[in-house]
Amino acid sequence: MSDTMEKLVHAFERFPGVGPRQAQRFVYHLLATSASHRATLAHLINDLARDVHQCPTCFRFWSGKGAHCFSCADRTRDTALLMVVEKDQDLEAIEKTQTYRGHYFVLGGVLTLAGKGAIREQELLRSVDTRRKEGLKEIILALSATSEGEHTADRLREVLKPYRDHIRITTLGRGLSTGTELEYSDAETLSAALINRKES
Amino acid sequence: MSDTMEKLVHAFERFPGVGPRQAQRFVYHLLATSASHRATLAHLINDLARDVHQCPTCFRFWSGKGAHCFSCADRTRDTALLMVVEKDQDLEAIEKTQTYRGHYFVLGGVLTLAGKGAIREQELLRSVDTRRKEGLKEIILALSATSEGEHTADRLREVLKPYRDHIRITTLGRGLSTGTELEYSDAETLSAALINRKES
Amino acid sequence: MSDTMEKLVHAFERFPGVGPRQAQRFVYHLLATSASHRATLAHLINDLARDVHQCPTCFRFWSGKGAHCFSCADRTRDTALLMVVEKDQDLEAIEKTQTYRGHYFVLGGVLTLAGKGAIREQELLRSVDTRRKEGLKEIILALSATSEGEHTADRLREVLKPYRDHIRITTLGRGLSTGTELEYSDAETLSAALINRKES
Amino acid sequence: MSDTMEKLVHAFERFPGVGPRQAQRFVYHLLATSASHRATLAHLINDLARDVHQCPTCFRFWSGKGAHCFSCADRTRDTALLMVVEKDQDLEAIEKTQTYRGHYFVLGGVLTLAGKGAIREQELLRSVDTRRKEGLKEIILALSATSEGEHTADRLREVLKPYRDHIRITTLGRGLSTGTELEYSDAETLSAALINRKES
Repeated sequence: MSDTMEKLVHAFERFPGVGPRQAQRFVYHLLATSASHRATLAHLINDLARDVHQCPTCFRFWSGKGAHCFSCADRTRDTALLMVVEKDQDLEAIEKTQTYRGHYFVLGGVLTLAGKGAIREQELLRSVDTRRKEGLKEIILALSATSEGEHTADRLREVLKPYRDHIRITTLGRGLSTGTELEYSDAETLSAALINRKES
Repeated sequence: MSDTMEKLVHAFERFPGVGPRQAQRFVYHLLATSASHRATLAHLINDLARDVHQCPTCFRFWSGKGAHCFSCADRTRDTALLMVVEKDQDLEAIEKTQTYRGHYFVLGGVLTLAGKGAIREQELLRSVDTRRKEGLKEIILALSATSEGEHTADRLREVLKPYRDHIRITTLGRGLSTGTELEYSDAETLSAALINRKES
Repeated sequence: MSDTMEKLVHAFERFPGVGPRQAQRFVYHLLATSASHRATLAHLINDLARDVHQCPTCFRFWSGKGAHCFSCADRTRDTALLMVVEKDQDLEAIEKTQTYRGHYFVLGGVLTLAGKGAIREQELLRSVDTRRKEGLKEIILALSATSEGEHTADRLREVLKPYRDHIRITTLGRGLSTGTELEYSDAETLSAALINRKES
Repeated sequence: MSDTMEKLVHAFERFPGVGPRQAQRFVYHLLATSASHRATLAHLINDLARDVHQCPTCFRFWSGKGAHCFSCADRTRDTALLMVVEKDQDLEAIEKTQTYRGHYFVLGGVLTLAGKGAIREQELLRSVDTRRKEGLKEIILALSATSEGEHTADRLREVLKPYRDHIRITTLGRGLSTGTELEYSDAETLSAALINRKES
């Protein structure tokens, strides 16, 4: 392998979920494609930052003109609601439900039980301060139902304590996810599903 | 292989989740154990029916004296609640939550979208008729969040329509199961999780 | 669960590859079948030893009359060849190839690197002593290409050293197994495949 | 998502083994890294072709000066041997064994049973013509032990028929790959392992 190939293999190894063998296949895939295809890919990677910005209010990545992302700039959105998510993909999953019309804040990560991980804590507090003046009534901690998600929610509840007199802190409801079978469910999921049962 | 071995392989192949190869391994495992071990196993299988009965009211398998299973016979249980489950293992998963104190009914299966599967429909209706006189107020359709579970719930709702004036029909709440990540969740799960969100 | 059910769950948990949950499903499966089906299964398990014996020469399980299993009793088999296998299933896999016409010896296990596992070492030596008088020329150590298989072969080579002047000790050929892809193969497999290459 | 992001997601989806969800994660990963990191990656992709060439003789990718890749240019290599492989990664796997000192030819693919796939057939014939004058005695068809690999070898044998009077055509030896267990092996693998057995 050439130096360039090896450097490229190492660069691809840092991609999420990519091991050394797949990184190597990526490089051979690129070698087998046309020069114009490679040039296009290089351009897209280079232009990514020119075209995509991080919103200074909610920290999601977005593209377009104006100082804020389209949801932060959207005046029809409910200023009483702020949903805190781990990452952009989670925000997009929520948008697809078409049932949420409030604002967002992207934490940029979760805290692990081992004390690792970084989240935008100060930025969240500033955002809450600003949004409070605009009528914020509820902060929804929309984190995954994993130990890391719960650990992060615990930390956020602590940090947000000073606001609890005026703002409700909520978390997503627990219950049966699509595909969940009773036999393989834990007591926490089943208890929540029982309590949240609905007339049907 | 001997005739007995082949017959035994075929018998084990009918066990849930067991293929031909594993069935064969079971037989060699039995051959490698002692004669007394095999005799004990044969006894347990033979005695199963002597020791375990199906409750005539809820259709769960149980052992002990008396005409009914211990939960049907338990006078402290809430007669206003009847939970309909697919199978014994689901009932046991619910019992482990220690949050449900009503009665049960075991359907014995689910209906598939292809129109297959058998459930104890007539037996359920008889059970509801009887329990109505004892104060039944709610039937909880506690089926898995799978297409078959939902299809079965649909059928039960139809069959139970005549009772809806006096009895609520409910289903388990949807939301995030333990381990669920937002990014990989479908819109139905996320919408339910959003609607069922809780102060925390 | 009743006592009988719990005992049966524990018995099934000792079956190869069966966990607690599947063991439980087995018991509910048996409860859901007919009493006559259970009686048949119990009979088969009980009769297993009456019907199936362990050959005193090669230690395979077999059924039928006579003092030896059909391959040990088969006079048309090549007495110059003795194949040593770990277990009955391996022997059956070899028989299916229809390319081997010699005799067998079933070790009954492999030795682990951690020094665990038991094999029929003394019985093998006795068998070799007997077969030597009948013209044994080669012992094929037909063990799996795993670290345990190789460790067991190493031990057997040591134990069989006194016979090496008159008897060849061989091991199965290495190379590409059906389905093997070059890219994912280790150097040992590829080297052997290269050395064993064939005109085609 | 912006246009650039969506185009980049589509570009990554064409990478081997990458689905839409992982392609999206790649893009967010790039957004989260620094601009200089992205610029480096874009450079490496752009420079790939400048730095890496395809050898006109064996069609492997290589870097360096001179008209041919280092193995084609290596005068100490055995000109009597030519190994035909599917792709560069297979060639590298063979090199790692350090047991092969002949020349190579990279087919650039395999033929599927459905009649799809393209291989460098004409280029191979030209290469064989040239190498024949340099003393070529054996062509090793080093393809995977899969149905596609065998189908491709069949085609190559047909195409190479005119040379068979002077050149041996061989294929890699079959047998137990590292990790193969007897119980789970097919008859073809076991027969070959038996035939290729070795004194040990």
